[in-house]
Amino acid sequence: MGTRKMFKYQQRSEELGNCLTGDKVYTAFERLTPIVHRTPLITSATTNRIVGKQVYFKLENQQKTGAFKFRGASYKLMQLTQEELDRGVITASAGNHAQGLAHASTKLGIESTIFMPESTPEAKVSATKAYGAKVVLAGESFQEAFEASKKYQLQSGAVYVHPFDDHDIMAGQGTVALEMLQQEDRLDTLIVPIGGGGLISGVAVAAKHVNKNIQIIGVQASNAPAMYNAFHHRSYPKNATVDTIAEGIAVKQPGKHTSEIIHEYVDDIVTVTDEEIASSILYMLERNKTLMEGAGAAALAGLFAYKDKIKSKHCGIVVSGGNIDLDVMPHIQKLAQKAAKEHFPA
Amino acid sequence: MGTRKMFKYQQRSEELGNCLTGDKVYTAFERLTPIVHRTPLITSATTNRIVGKQVYFKLENQQKTGAFKFRGASYKLMQLTQEELDRGVITASAGNHAQGLAHASTKLGIESTIFMPESTPEAKVSATKAYGAKVVLAGESFQEAFEASKKYQLQSGAVYVHPFDDHDIMAGQGTVALEMLQQEDRLDTLIVPIGGGGLISGVAVAAKHVNKNIQIIGVQASNAPAMYNAFHHRSYPKNATVDTIAEGIAVKQPGKHTSEIIHEYVDDIVTVTDEEIASSILYMLERNKTLMEGAGAAALAGLFAYKDKIKSKHCGIVVSGGNIDLDVMPHIQKLAQKAAKEHFPA
Repeated sequence: MGTRKMFKYQQRSEELGNCLTGDKVYTAFERLTPIVHRTPLITSATTNRIVGKQVYFKLENQQKTGAFKFRGASYKLMQLTQEELDRGVITASAGNHAQGLAHASTKLGIESTIFMPESTPEAKVSATKAYGAKVVLAGESFQEAFEASKKYQLQSGAVYVHPFDDHDIMAGQGTVALEMLQQEDRLDTLIVPIGGGGLISGVAVAAKHVNKNIQIIGVQASNAPAMYNAFHHRSYPKNATVDTIAEGIAVKQPGKHTSEIIHEYVDDIVTVTDEEIASSILYMLERNKTLMEGAGAAALAGLFAYKDKIKSKHCGIVVSGGNIDLDVMPHIQKLAQKAAKEHFPA
Repeated sequence: MGTRKMFKYQQRSEELGNCLTGDKVYTAFERLTPIVHRTPLITSATTNRIVGKQVYFKLENQQKTGAFKFRGASYKLMQLTQEELDRGVITASAGNHAQGLAHASTKLGIESTIFMPESTPEAKVSATKAYGAKVVLAGESFQEAFEASKKYQLQSGAVYVHPFDDHDIMAGQGTVALEMLQQEDRLDTLIVPIGGGGLISGVAVAAKHVNKNIQIIGVQASNAPAMYNAFHHRSYPKNATVDTIAEGIAVKQPGKHTSEIIHEYVDDIVTVTDEEIASSILYMLERNKTLMEGAGAAALAGLFAYKDKIKSKHCGIVVSGGNIDLDVMPHIQKLAQKAAKEHFPA
């Protein structure tokens, strides 16, 4: 990725008066520091040996609400006017964005309404309610819940908070990278899971602002490769199906703004199978005693799968979240056994 | 616990020329800092709310080899002469001490021999071998493995490294407390699991050296209450049976030196049931995404069970280790459900 491409993005975005810059992420970092957890950056000698690099895990599974999403949601709310805050916020999500936005809203004393598909597991519904949100169950699929939320927004006047395709959200998520680089300034590569692309957009812009030579590698699930296809093949299928244990990154359609940033700031995107993701979940639990959800395990799975191709001495892995239903563990163990037969990880 | 008791211990021990002092733990801290992980001290708003105190978890499950034992073993080896190191070290253990000593020995380039009962699970045997130890399987019970190791020591001349009843081992373990107090100097109470008593002895002496008002509370499994009985009833049954999911603290006979220190430095000892331990394991995994073994969960179980009796504003919990076989999780879930019916945690 050349400096020219980045410059082009900044220039065009500034003309449009709406862009994600390193300075914006720095501002978010300063404002978020008092309210987010400074999550640990841990190392593991065994992992270093397996992949032949120094590896650093950023444990955003230990972030408030169990995922990095609390960062972006909190920063977004900080950008709203009092009048907007008074109207409350709304989104559709059955995942970490729901809990992140609910918790951030409650902390600020404002109302949040979260639309979820009717099939959402009761545990997720009650967790989101426990963080203080009003939950509305609507429709059979995420798409139907999303459409219902948009309709409700028109009636209620609440502010819509998109889970990823929003520059303030991205700036908040990008603070993960600044924190990592403060904790370990030798990082030369960051591996980041991609769903809609909010996290990697923020991370890429922030990291390259600090040091333009830092490599940014995105990882998608091979059964939900929308951004991978857009990045490598410039293909944007609208009705793709997604089916992966990494439901947090099972996004059918990449964001418009995030796609633009990813094309210009991200160096490569790879995919990993569910078996590889399951292996990585078990590996981290057994070796480093930390629980990752499927999406949270994607970056490590990517490192294991491409360890010989990734040229890095000090490699940062973003463990994006840890909200996994423990009842899924037997299934994870079965998938990992299948992967073990295929000799993964080495 | 009065200053007089502590003074008495120091005086008597100094006369004997062999004791555990705060200065000794400080020395261990300085020497261990370059080789141990400075493990995270994390907080959890939900836990604070449940127990009505600020709670800080010291994640020694993320220590090298998955438990605090690496600290004591490493410091012990540093105290040996070159001539002693050349003879190699020996111990009997089927648990974290085995792996801690094996890893510390390999790091120093010396030979370690670990005796384990023949019934030890293959996973533990191979993990200990992977850290570089020579493993000898001997006898049906731990006691038989221990006796075989003592006999072998006489033949081989190797240095015996006791898992807990050794002042150098205790000094190494006590560095956990100094690290915690560096990370959060407002800690007024430390809750610590007790098996043989090496960890709590080091922690108590170190913490009271920093601030004699810090309360030290030990936790044992109700099915393995040897030190609890010795502390509260001055009773020392020799042939007690132990049967708990917290196998890391299932010790039949308290240490002689550790008992002495615990009587004088520890403020209280409580017990918790296996159901309470299981609940705490699941709670931490679901809430804070961190995997504790049974022994590692005892301190949190103690806090939940005695939250109203423990007077503390800033309470430190030592999560001593995380080496749990994931195949045991369904059993843990069953035990936790039983506890949930008894409304634990509240």
